[in-house]
Amino acid sequence: MKKLVLSLLVNNEAGVLTRVSGLFARRGFNISSLSVGETQNPQFSRITIQAMGDEYVRAQLVHQLRKLHDVKVVENMELEQTVCRELMLIKVCAGSDTRSQVLEGANVFRAKVCDLTPTTVTMELTGDTDKLDAFITFLEPFKIIETCRTGITAIGRGKYTLNHIKEDVLNG
Amino acid sequence: MKKLVLSLLVNNEAGVLTRVSGLFARRGFNISSLSVGETQNPQFSRITIQAMGDEYVRAQLVHQLRKLHDVKVVENMELEQTVCRELMLIKVCAGSDTRSQVLEGANVFRAKVCDLTPTTVTMELTGDTDKLDAFITFLEPFKIIETCRTGITAIGRGKYTLNHIKEDVLNG
Repeated sequence: MKKLVLSLLVNNEAGVLTRVSGLFARRGFNISSLSVGETQNPQFSRITIQAMGDEYVRAQLVHQLRKLHDVKVVENMELEQTVCRELMLIKVCAGSDTRSQVLEGANVFRAKVCDLTPTTVTMELTGDTDKLDAFITFLEPFKIIETCRTGITAIGRGKYTLNHIKEDVLNG
Repeated sequence: MKKLVLSLLVNNEAGVLTRVSGLFARRGFNISSLSVGETQNPQFSRITIQAMGDEYVRAQLVHQLRKLHDVKVVENMELEQTVCRELMLIKVCAGSDTRSQVLEGANVFRAKVCDLTPTTVTMELTGDTDKLDAFITFLEPFKIIETCRTGITAIGRGKYTLNHIKEDVLNG
């Protein structure tokens, strides 16, 4: 079992996400994270899926996803050639006695403070999954109130891009 | 029609995402963005959905989502009391003649450079949807190769939190 990251270009229509996630559910694969965002072309959305599986699972998923009508491109991302990032919003308890410790930690991790009250600090952090997990571990002693994570999105380095495929799609 | 942001706590199981997105699809609502991430409790995931709709749509969605067995909490986020953030990875063409212009722009928007080749710059930016759109507009003249967006995630300010509800859920 290893981490799989799949990038999809799909038609931006109601129902597409249901068909994609349904394919994972029917086969009993749990998705560890999924994010959907607009692309520059309003006709298409881009879905990034992270899951665990072996080589057989990967090949099956790619094969089955490619058969879905609304899925235009499926790419298995080579992790060495890919930048993966996730965004987390996290709110912790911090009064006057602990606030400066929390803010020092935020500074080390390069987290941005996006809300501050007399009793709480809310921060925003981006990075790979391990970095976000390390920040959570640092903050646990202060009592974490809430965490919101987007799931990862992924882009190929330099020349590794979905775009040449996208252009083929766009030109019919 | 106005922007709706819904936060859900759901069981972390295969099939839940399909049922949630299927509900939107059956009713013909297109989701403008959706993100799913882990929470501190491995039993639950948190889903943030952004969609367009009026008050009637909002009430219907909340009502129908609450009927789904695997959906533990549905909260309509009050936008004035909510921090919404999205992450974008964006790759643009930039050779020796235009690279410094691109990097200057990145500096102004506080984007981080995460990959650089002789012909491309790949950057990471977080913010609300409008900020990401403004950065795209700035970069368009340089030729954008690829954009990957996570969709928004949302957290309530200060005392506004899903957690009191989550604790009720956790304690049965």
